[in-house]
Amino acid sequence: MADSAPFAPPAGAAELEDGTALTPKFDAEGLVTAVATDAKSGDVLMVAHMNAQALAKTIATGEAWYYSRSRRALWRKGETSGHTQRVVEMRIDCDQDAVWIKVEQIAGACHTGRRSCFYRAVPLGTAEGDVRGAKLEFRDARVFDPKAAYGKGSSHS
Amino acid sequence: MADSAPFAPPAGAAELEDGTALTPKFDAEGLVTAVATDAKSGDVLMVAHMNAQALAKTIATGEAWYYSRSRRALWRKGETSGHTQRVVEMRIDCDQDAVWIKVEQIAGACHTGRRSCFYRAVPLGTAEGDVRGAKLEFRDARVFDPKAAYGKGSSHS
Repeated sequence: MADSAPFAPPAGAAELEDGTALTPKFDAEGLVTAVATDAKSGDVLMVAHMNAQALAKTIATGEAWYYSRSRRALWRKGETSGHTQRVVEMRIDCDQDAVWIKVEQIAGACHTGRRSCFYRAVPLGTAEGDVRGAKLEFRDARVFDPKAAYGKGSSHS
Repeated sequence: MADSAPFAPPAGAAELEDGTALTPKFDAEGLVTAVATDAKSGDVLMVAHMNAQALAKTIATGEAWYYSRSRRALWRKGETSGHTQRVVEMRIDCDQDAVWIKVEQIAGACHTGRRSCFYRAVPLGTAEGDVRGAKLEFRDARVFDPKAAYGKGSSHS
């Protein structure tokens, strides 16, 4: 469970959507969803989560911080690999449970070595009953060697 | 809880990340995260969720379907407002728990009347201890009248 003390609790729906107060709506695990896009290309690089502390650190430092659900730990993007994200702009959505950051990404965002985590396309037009057999199509090659960047065992950092 | 029968269960990490099988990793509620971006501008329009049926319908029809957690219902984007999303491309991320769709958005994606749900910026550089006082900055004007589009009481459709 995250410490949400840095932020005030959400007010009613009207203030949440039409107000200027930053009152993030953290979920039961204390998290908001965070989408990082490439400030130049607009491509979605990754989808992750922030707890209150990660959100506060991202705002304060202009570098992307996240919360790893699997490792249950605050995580500065690039702390192991050096593949940091400088935040150019942060937006928050209507009900304040998701943030969008436009970032300058060093090397690649994905722990598999790609620029973006979304390196495979899902073909469209497959009949609803046949989607089980849909074949993903690789679109992006690796831009770095994950073994060299992370050593072994680490992921998403 | 969503019916995940249309898809095969995820295999091990190697196949999940480096394979061509579409094996979405639905969470405890049966959902994956879905990020919709504007196919032309690259702007993030909205962040929502899909259950297995919404994902299968989106793939089959090339129109965005979601699952509303608040209404506990499958939801074709634009079914009330007419503000549909035609999917130009779908991507899935490394661990197959998030999809990115590039869409042609009719009018606006946000139930508040804006093109994007992310119509407010969060100022950067506020000290970590002072983020509670950060003031959001409105960046996007309304592109439609939500009362006319939805009537009263509806949201996010």
